[in-house]
Amino acid sequence: MKSFDLIVKNADIVTASERYRGDIGIHNGRISVIAAELDAAQAQQVIDAEGRMVTPGGVDAHCHLDQPSTDGSVGADDFISGTRSAACGGTTTIIPFAMQFKGQSLKQAIADYHQRAEGKASIDYAFHVIITDASQAVIDEIPEVIAQGYTSFKIYMTYDALKLTDHHILNVLEAAREAGAISMIHAENDDCISWLTERLKKQGKTAPRYHALAHSPIGEREATHRAISLAELVDVPILLVHVSSRAAIEQIYWARGQGINIFSETCPQYLFLTAEDLGIDDSFHGAKCICSPPPRDTDSQNAVWNALANGTFTIFSSDHCPFNFDDPRGKKLHGDNASFDLVPNGIAGLETRLPLLMSEGVLQNRISAQRFVDLTATAPAKLYGLYPQKGSIAVGSDADLVIWDTDLDKTITNNDLHTNADHTPYEGKRVQAWPALTLSRGEKVWSEGQYHGRAGSGAFLPCAVPFPVRG
Amino acid sequence: MKSFDLIVKNADIVTASERYRGDIGIHNGRISVIAAELDAAQAQQVIDAEGRMVTPGGVDAHCHLDQPSTDGSVGADDFISGTRSAACGGTTTIIPFAMQFKGQSLKQAIADYHQRAEGKASIDYAFHVIITDASQAVIDEIPEVIAQGYTSFKIYMTYDALKLTDHHILNVLEAAREAGAISMIHAENDDCISWLTERLKKQGKTAPRYHALAHSPIGEREATHRAISLAELVDVPILLVHVSSRAAIEQIYWARGQGINIFSETCPQYLFLTAEDLGIDDSFHGAKCICSPPPRDTDSQNAVWNALANGTFTIFSSDHCPFNFDDPRGKKLHGDNASFDLVPNGIAGLETRLPLLMSEGVLQNRISAQRFVDLTATAPAKLYGLYPQKGSIAVGSDADLVIWDTDLDKTITNNDLHTNADHTPYEGKRVQAWPALTLSRGEKVWSEGQYHGRAGSGAFLPCAVPFPVRG
Amino acid sequence: MKSFDLIVKNADIVTASERYRGDIGIHNGRISVIAAELDAAQAQQVIDAEGRMVTPGGVDAHCHLDQPSTDGSVGADDFISGTRSAACGGTTTIIPFAMQFKGQSLKQAIADYHQRAEGKASIDYAFHVIITDASQAVIDEIPEVIAQGYTSFKIYMTYDALKLTDHHILNVLEAAREAGAISMIHAENDDCISWLTERLKKQGKTAPRYHALAHSPIGEREATHRAISLAELVDVPILLVHVSSRAAIEQIYWARGQGINIFSETCPQYLFLTAEDLGIDDSFHGAKCICSPPPRDTDSQNAVWNALANGTFTIFSSDHCPFNFDDPRGKKLHGDNASFDLVPNGIAGLETRLPLLMSEGVLQNRISAQRFVDLTATAPAKLYGLYPQKGSIAVGSDADLVIWDTDLDKTITNNDLHTNADHTPYEGKRVQAWPALTLSRGEKVWSEGQYHGRAGSGAFLPCAVPFPVRG
Amino acid sequence: MKSFDLIVKNADIVTASERYRGDIGIHNGRISVIAAELDAAQAQQVIDAEGRMVTPGGVDAHCHLDQPSTDGSVGADDFISGTRSAACGGTTTIIPFAMQFKGQSLKQAIADYHQRAEGKASIDYAFHVIITDASQAVIDEIPEVIAQGYTSFKIYMTYDALKLTDHHILNVLEAAREAGAISMIHAENDDCISWLTERLKKQGKTAPRYHALAHSPIGEREATHRAISLAELVDVPILLVHVSSRAAIEQIYWARGQGINIFSETCPQYLFLTAEDLGIDDSFHGAKCICSPPPRDTDSQNAVWNALANGTFTIFSSDHCPFNFDDPRGKKLHGDNASFDLVPNGIAGLETRLPLLMSEGVLQNRISAQRFVDLTATAPAKLYGLYPQKGSIAVGSDADLVIWDTDLDKTITNNDLHTNADHTPYEGKRVQAWPALTLSRGEKVWSEGQYHGRAGSGAFLPCAVPFPVRG
Repeated sequence: MKSFDLIVKNADIVTASERYRGDIGIHNGRISVIAAELDAAQAQQVIDAEGRMVTPGGVDAHCHLDQPSTDGSVGADDFISGTRSAACGGTTTIIPFAMQFKGQSLKQAIADYHQRAEGKASIDYAFHVIITDASQAVIDEIPEVIAQGYTSFKIYMTYDALKLTDHHILNVLEAAREAGAISMIHAENDDCISWLTERLKKQGKTAPRYHALAHSPIGEREATHRAISLAELVDVPILLVHVSSRAAIEQIYWARGQGINIFSETCPQYLFLTAEDLGIDDSFHGAKCICSPPPRDTDSQNAVWNALANGTFTIFSSDHCPFNFDDPRGKKLHGDNASFDLVPNGIAGLETRLPLLMSEGVLQNRISAQRFVDLTATAPAKLYGLYPQKGSIAVGSDADLVIWDTDLDKTITNNDLHTNADHTPYEGKRVQAWPALTLSRGEKVWSEGQYHGRAGSGAFLPCAVPFPVRG
Repeated sequence: MKSFDLIVKNADIVTASERYRGDIGIHNGRISVIAAELDAAQAQQVIDAEGRMVTPGGVDAHCHLDQPSTDGSVGADDFISGTRSAACGGTTTIIPFAMQFKGQSLKQAIADYHQRAEGKASIDYAFHVIITDASQAVIDEIPEVIAQGYTSFKIYMTYDALKLTDHHILNVLEAAREAGAISMIHAENDDCISWLTERLKKQGKTAPRYHALAHSPIGEREATHRAISLAELVDVPILLVHVSSRAAIEQIYWARGQGINIFSETCPQYLFLTAEDLGIDDSFHGAKCICSPPPRDTDSQNAVWNALANGTFTIFSSDHCPFNFDDPRGKKLHGDNASFDLVPNGIAGLETRLPLLMSEGVLQNRISAQRFVDLTATAPAKLYGLYPQKGSIAVGSDADLVIWDTDLDKTITNNDLHTNADHTPYEGKRVQAWPALTLSRGEKVWSEGQYHGRAGSGAFLPCAVPFPVRG
Repeated sequence: MKSFDLIVKNADIVTASERYRGDIGIHNGRISVIAAELDAAQAQQVIDAEGRMVTPGGVDAHCHLDQPSTDGSVGADDFISGTRSAACGGTTTIIPFAMQFKGQSLKQAIADYHQRAEGKASIDYAFHVIITDASQAVIDEIPEVIAQGYTSFKIYMTYDALKLTDHHILNVLEAAREAGAISMIHAENDDCISWLTERLKKQGKTAPRYHALAHSPIGEREATHRAISLAELVDVPILLVHVSSRAAIEQIYWARGQGINIFSETCPQYLFLTAEDLGIDDSFHGAKCICSPPPRDTDSQNAVWNALANGTFTIFSSDHCPFNFDDPRGKKLHGDNASFDLVPNGIAGLETRLPLLMSEGVLQNRISAQRFVDLTATAPAKLYGLYPQKGSIAVGSDADLVIWDTDLDKTITNNDLHTNADHTPYEGKRVQAWPALTLSRGEKVWSEGQYHGRAGSGAFLPCAVPFPVRG
Repeated sequence: MKSFDLIVKNADIVTASERYRGDIGIHNGRISVIAAELDAAQAQQVIDAEGRMVTPGGVDAHCHLDQPSTDGSVGADDFISGTRSAACGGTTTIIPFAMQFKGQSLKQAIADYHQRAEGKASIDYAFHVIITDASQAVIDEIPEVIAQGYTSFKIYMTYDALKLTDHHILNVLEAAREAGAISMIHAENDDCISWLTERLKKQGKTAPRYHALAHSPIGEREATHRAISLAELVDVPILLVHVSSRAAIEQIYWARGQGINIFSETCPQYLFLTAEDLGIDDSFHGAKCICSPPPRDTDSQNAVWNALANGTFTIFSSDHCPFNFDDPRGKKLHGDNASFDLVPNGIAGLETRLPLLMSEGVLQNRISAQRFVDLTATAPAKLYGLYPQKGSIAVGSDADLVIWDTDLDKTITNNDLHTNADHTPYEGKRVQAWPALTLSRGEKVWSEGQYHGRAGSGAFLPCAVPFPVRG
């Protein structure tokens, strides 16, 4: 019998800290050996990486798939199309959200999402749990939910249907601390948003671009400071999701200097889009880029790049949440003349996340290849308790690997992508890098420009509590 | 023929980002395979790590061995005793300094130090070059010196015999930028020190403990801000060595937030000693702990721990520079009643650096094991161009490994150490961890409480320019 | 006819910026002349200040008199005792609060307070209006209320019966901006307080001293940052009342550096008391010092002194709000074993405010005499639209003056004070300064240790919008 | 005999804190009475201010008149033209510098300057002393010099002929502390300037506009931090002169938050000019605006305005130091093609300082009228020991007054100015305000567009140590 199902030879192996040449031997979906040289004869199959970078498959820790809404909107991607799109962009693990409806138990919410994913995912997945109703009964559920493998809780400070009060946030943080779980916080001041929205609408400023004014950096900064303060009070780490602005980032620097243990995440839209992508006139096409917080300006982009490079940000996720543009259940839910505040929030990103960061980050020398791996795979796997099974190229880890092409001149176009969404915010953007091949537990899910995944082959991953980490 | 000279089985392998179980196969002094399981029969020798942590051998990037002085003092350790002491404490690579005397060319300085190391070192070594005379001729030498493997330059802002003006510092930084080399800066304001020293001496305050007053945190903070400013002007990264105080650390946070690329280093004395170790009365015993900058207070200790944990500090080094206490060429160069400013500066640290940080950092959950590895081995290897040969557990890297005992109750006493120094500042301190075994390129240099190294077996390591890194 | 009703001769006149020798001529309750020398024969009466400091009578812009409660508690002082106590401590103008009950119109609230003051006040008074119900009808009342002389609005971020949401705060701030009025904000995070209170009570920690833990500096800092953010969003100045902690002060420094126009106030309790005054054991006597925010620690005291001295704080007020200790409607409302959160909040301060600050601030050289005048009289008069009638020694201003004794060795004891409260938090504290004489519109209300005021002689002062000022 | 030589009636009197209506009675050059109404019959002369603002005559605490150079350049103004120009712009007191040449005693330097001023000044003057040689003999002179009325010392951190080492600065600061004197520091890093200058010149970048690049804000920020640190070490207040950039201002905010007692000054050129005024091409006309530090950009202008408004800056001075443009001893000392570093540094400002700030500051509501008075008159008088004789409208103070026209539409042109300089940097700038009348000790020196001053009527003012003040 052969020792390896597959050998990846001549790899330029990149982990979150290392970069070296080696051959990777895979057996039963796991990495069993890494060696200076492995005997090709020992393998059922050999792939020659030809000195190209090989990174851990991406872990996208922030995406929304088949998530029911409270307003009748329907997201573009379910677990079939979402995992397909992820795989074709080099992501092999996703952690979408199981959202609790108010009144529902967490276990009901989780059970519902298992049904939505069952038989559909072509790559592995875990779940964060969105808590929208933090009654005592729900708080009491938390230890059991954690024991069952759901160890990260999402808290919203905005959106009427989702937001918790500061008191409820403190309760959730306290329960998370007891169990060693991690809480993710969407930090925008809801009252600032609603107040600005009222005033903009009164003035007839309802076009998509006014979304960026309604979601002021002041409101993001305020909520960021508040979230940090609540975490400091409870003495528990949190992760600030999708940080967008220089003002919010400055609060994170401040917190870290104070010795407060804060993790944070940013997303491609804060590096590659600005508020102008929501429109420089009143065209409804700007609705395609409505997401919260919105893209900011080039000054904030620079601040985001700096915090990515210097290690301040922990995680780089997509916040994938696309709605079709030409769709009465999508961006046009309330017609193509709807006020910005009625437009479903969210953009696509699962497939383009890694190529964009590899191209503009690593290949433009803004960040190292190792930092790329840490931000996109290792750190999320650690923080959400999937490490070392996921996020690593190391013996014993799942053989989730990406072999990179890094000398392309490729133009992103939605036609080439594998999402169900009818558009991409990055249409026309040129990238130099794209996965040549993606392996999920040793199986090709993407190679030679073809998707090879199989609905149902993706497995649910129960999460442990976070690997000991520090923000 | 056997595939491996040595297999380390059942290792709890720790790198700067990973932690996983595996067997490590070693051939010709290098790691050739890491596998879930290796066949013991393939090896000349097998060491069973029994699930204990195995880390890369330490890289101590800041130590002074056999360094001639301008005042007649003689350091306690040469390359024989220094490398012996290092190996017994788990360090397998050192980067001491080759100091230019004023008027000397850099190449003369380097040649002199090669003679000092030749045939004596039992572990591998590279050199930083101290520039004390930045004449145009010296600046012109820099590209060639870099090409020959000396890629890091030490700059002093204090000490009469060593310090450069800001203008000369700018010249050195500019030359470093052109060649992609890195500069290390000792940041204390020399005039503040001399002015305070004058006033203290006028008041008869000459006991060792006044050294800590003369080297005020204000002077360290000022010079730190200045060094950062000079680096910002030239747009080149620098490393701030041996940062000791909260005030200086706050400047580093500030710089990183501004997008300035700053690396920094701290040392055990800033975690485990305070100014009180220089004496709470006028006893000359305090002279043992005279070093610059001096240990501070518990508030600064906390700030140092926080910056170690959150990733602000890049490197943890010893700044090993011991002088014998009872020695007319050591701490008593000017007698046992000498004013603090006449006492040779420096303390021992090569052997205790890793055990102290493993015990108080990792085992007390202040920092992760991976962060320990990064601070003590991977990051210095990268910054000083020795990576991936050194600082890593990865195929192709040198088999420099430490197997750890982590459940000891050991009391540090100088008798047990392998330095030539007649005292240790950590006498009586208890540690929980110590290397059980140290391998240098696959050879045992320390095991079962015995030193097995051999003078001359350590090789000179020419350095590349820094691995792309970001502070 | 004599030109002057009264001449104060040989005064060491202090204003918010000046200090000089002069004679002050008073006619019809106003200062009509200031001269190097006035002819005593021109005056009905002459008081020789003998070179002693003469300052404007104090303006206490933060006090609660005869304010009805929602819990059945009754404050110790009404307008008779409150204004008496103020006058005897050198204060000649007070600005207590007219509190709106939820459902009430602002005009109803104001009318009610006029009744409470009518015929009782012996010094002049204006009103701030507390908005507890910011319905649109109330917002619509604001312009008219301002036109009638009520130009400052108090907003609470805590206390169930008083607090506004961020959205309502934004509405009030917007209405204030339109009319050029000023808003005062009590910045503590209510949810942090309630959450901490719950946890403390669960652990049986109900003694008065736990009040200081429940009102954490983190909650104050958070709300301070939030209040600043709301003001920044609306682009309107606010005044942060009774700032107590270093953490909150740092937010104010930050805001001023950002160009945000922030005023702030502190109180004697943050200079002269610490959390230990709430008890170092579980004795209920600590209830005497329960107020919100609570006194902090010496580090915060130092930060408060620094911000007083360097001009960061705008105003120094008493926040006078005493409850009798031995009183079932006072501190013992819920018995002498009540949990801290049930104890009425507030301490006395009207009478001791100026002597304490003169003694410890001016006479200890922590602040200048001019800064004393600005903090205690001129700045509040300007900010609340009473300037130049009040807060100044200038021709045309009301002859509200204090002649100081500054070489006393006086021990504060409640027996000597003129409040109705049965205790003072400063019992036993020694002061060097006390008013020798207080003039209210040219009439002696306090001299030779006797109160000469007359209930009803105090007049209501309609306020203009703030004198152009900048925080 | 009449009681008054002069009465100014119906004045809108502004002091550093007050603003009120009154009549001002003047006798023997001093203000003897301020009254609601004075009897015109009591005066020799009456001027009706007709409700116009009346402010204290300006105190310009930073100007250079008839100061000898080390390079052969000759400034445009001596004490005749300088004081004439000052008076016509509303300034009634100047504090130019007496510069020590290296090797000279302070007393020699002072004596020399007395000769230069003698019989020439038409307004009152005091002297700062520039210390360029801080030998022990000079340090020993300081107490006597202070006793003689020279209580402020200027220290340069740049310019070869002037700069002191940090050690010498510490010595001067220490001597100042002992005597309670104040030190003024020109904070730019000399080595940064010389290094940048070398590089610019190597690249042929010698036009005037490169002066702004050579004097980088980084170098100003660095020296500002250093000066603050030296003052903190000695524990003595300093004044940072002519602060120009946001980066330097941020250091001042930081220092004040730390409790360090720092005063600071800015000048008109940092509000009304930018680096573009040094040229947007290589024209030598940019040399007119060469001064150090140079004007910056609009972002720094905004930061300067904010710090003026919020009370961070203490003093607003001109740094008047003009050189004729078309003059071989002026800007063209080394020809009209000279490298920027050879052009004499300095611009005119004595006459335009007050009108510019009144117009753009007070009348545009950026600062209050009181703050104008404090910045331009009261604060410098206090800080330099001339208060209350100068800088105030109060009985006993010198009758130095300005009556303002504030509804002009006047275009500044050098033809209308009274300097000897052949150009003004503000040529063509429109202002709304200009002094209608200037009184120096009760005598008209400027009225109805005519200069009435008399060389020699200005008196030397010995300075006391600073009035107790706090930065």
